[in-house]
Amino acid sequence: MNIMAILGSSRRNGNTEYLVDRALSGVAFKKRFLLDYQINPIIDKRHTSEGFSKVDDDYERLFAEFMKQDIIIFATPLYWFGMSGQLKLFFDRWSQYMRDDKYDFKHLMSRKKAYVIVTGDNPNPKIAALPLIQQFQHIFTYTGVQFADYIIGQGNKPEEIKNDSFSLHTATSWNKEFTEVTKLK
Amino acid sequence: MNIMAILGSSRRNGNTEYLVDRALSGVAFKKRFLLDYQINPIIDKRHTSEGFSKVDDDYERLFAEFMKQDIIIFATPLYWFGMSGQLKLFFDRWSQYMRDDKYDFKHLMSRKKAYVIVTGDNPNPKIAALPLIQQFQHIFTYTGVQFADYIIGQGNKPEEIKNDSFSLHTATSWNKEFTEVTKLK
Amino acid sequence: MNIMAILGSSRRNGNTEYLVDRALSGVAFKKRFLLDYQINPIIDKRHTSEGFSKVDDDYERLFAEFMKQDIIIFATPLYWFGMSGQLKLFFDRWSQYMRDDKYDFKHLMSRKKAYVIVTGDNPNPKIAALPLIQQFQHIFTYTGVQFADYIIGQGNKPEEIKNDSFSLHTATSWNKEFTEVTKLK
Amino acid sequence: MNIMAILGSSRRNGNTEYLVDRALSGVAFKKRFLLDYQINPIIDKRHTSEGFSKVDDDYERLFAEFMKQDIIIFATPLYWFGMSGQLKLFFDRWSQYMRDDKYDFKHLMSRKKAYVIVTGDNPNPKIAALPLIQQFQHIFTYTGVQFADYIIGQGNKPEEIKNDSFSLHTATSWNKEFTEVTKLK
Repeated sequence: MNIMAILGSSRRNGNTEYLVDRALSGVAFKKRFLLDYQINPIIDKRHTSEGFSKVDDDYERLFAEFMKQDIIIFATPLYWFGMSGQLKLFFDRWSQYMRDDKYDFKHLMSRKKAYVIVTGDNPNPKIAALPLIQQFQHIFTYTGVQFADYIIGQGNKPEEIKNDSFSLHTATSWNKEFTEVTKLK
Repeated sequence: MNIMAILGSSRRNGNTEYLVDRALSGVAFKKRFLLDYQINPIIDKRHTSEGFSKVDDDYERLFAEFMKQDIIIFATPLYWFGMSGQLKLFFDRWSQYMRDDKYDFKHLMSRKKAYVIVTGDNPNPKIAALPLIQQFQHIFTYTGVQFADYIIGQGNKPEEIKNDSFSLHTATSWNKEFTEVTKLK
Repeated sequence: MNIMAILGSSRRNGNTEYLVDRALSGVAFKKRFLLDYQINPIIDKRHTSEGFSKVDDDYERLFAEFMKQDIIIFATPLYWFGMSGQLKLFFDRWSQYMRDDKYDFKHLMSRKKAYVIVTGDNPNPKIAALPLIQQFQHIFTYTGVQFADYIIGQGNKPEEIKNDSFSLHTATSWNKEFTEVTKLK
Repeated sequence: MNIMAILGSSRRNGNTEYLVDRALSGVAFKKRFLLDYQINPIIDKRHTSEGFSKVDDDYERLFAEFMKQDIIIFATPLYWFGMSGQLKLFFDRWSQYMRDDKYDFKHLMSRKKAYVIVTGDNPNPKIAALPLIQQFQHIFTYTGVQFADYIIGQGNKPEEIKNDSFSLHTATSWNKEFTEVTKLK
């Protein structure tokens, strides 16, 4: 059982990372900060004769690793009522590789399970993040990924998430699940 | 009356541009393709003592021009049930400049009027784009921008939008408005 | 090809009916005002041993007719950011009959095609009605009904819809489709 | 500090009531089941010369009591991806009384605080109930009611909600708040 957390935040040690760490405490997983990767915006070549061309950045390396996972935790602060631009670039490039036979995109995606962590503060993220949760739902329905659960955490300044007992409670319950499934072979 | 269209598409001559051109036919406006600008992801420094640092890219130049506009047309293809990553990066960086006294962000934003053009194809964008329209609504409500209207156009391959008579109809009616308001002075 | 329009409005000759009539001009169809039927709220008996009991109202008569249709136009004013209570009662009672072998609910629903007309005024219904459109989408996805298209019309006082050229344009194009399909045998 | 819970469910002792009772354990509050009231659908007379006419049912009695509350808990099962028809009828009739000087609707509403409890099961209510939460948000924004928090509980058969630790956790934390505010004079 391979687990990866993809963090779309623009800084380390933030509230999203805090929830990721709590959910995965004691569990073996890969933690990938998008800020450590150079990911270029997609150049849409679906309708050109030559098709997509190779892009000289860090994306494919990360994507190849991502495709091998069974469980993904997508974690992002709520920026302007959506996922961070960094994380959006990560999704946009799927369009390039979903057509690449090398990755068997459709089949492998349909076997994945996704968890989403969003944190924000003002206005109330439990309302402000709803379009983003719906966007994730559309993405997962379209690709066949199972949308297991999500947390909308409240916190802005570093550490504030520690006061959000609901988010902590849910992260802890995920931790039990993740501990269970990684015990099994 | 200053009008600017911001195109988040990754290619020229696409369906979003077609609708932009139709809506603004015969009207003086600035047309800005985000693909012509190097825009870096935001590095969140709100909670550091030094604050945001100057970023060496094309963003501030575009942003300064953007702030002078009265009417903005945000145009983006629907990528993974959201705006393009390119356009998201444009919004994310607002967080840096909204705190900058030089720009009087709050006051100037509250005087702007926004129009949104989204195009997509499969699944049906009139459903698939709804979370994105709601995200725009939150952004505009938060900043005080007036959300005048939106078009969800159907089309994937170049030129397909020409078959979407509803979108064309609305673009034409916007054109009348834009022609009117730019005549006044 | 059987077509039925179900009107959830609490008055006749309103804006929703105007759009229904335009969309179905010259086409044979059944027009059903929910205000002509006594429809009781559902009493949930799914978890009782005796199951649902017969309800003494007009619902089943309407429902039986509804099940025979191929195309349904659901038309409702936007009341408090949702469908009218009258129309909601119509949907709620599905829970009773979807378990009734007599109606072959699942199979028959999955062959239907639905169109939705919503009208409202202030605030802007093109934003205010989006949760309702998403609710319809969930209902249709769950039951297998094809969600063909929707109109969000702007108008409050009687006749105001006549100024909403976009809605009229769409209703006219539906009319062409309905005229076509009813010509075929 | 007056607290009222309005239950839109069609049966007693269900999962929504369980959460209501837990959130208000030990707190003085009024509990109102809509199934105990005869509430007629609204007849829209906004655009007639005579205006709304008196309706012979139980609504106004309940409404008058409702207007005296400071905190409202709206509790409903998720029926067809929305609030129950019973609860929708309750909201629809606001349109009649919001224009009635006797009730000072606008002023009194803007002083209320609302909590929402929704329970459902399949499909996953944490996704399926999002349009409903957005509908509540629009209603509260429009009327000036403060939308304090919501719970989306998972459970279908009676008692199943007892397995949803997240909902129980949140209900318990509300209970602390309600206990506090009712202690104050």
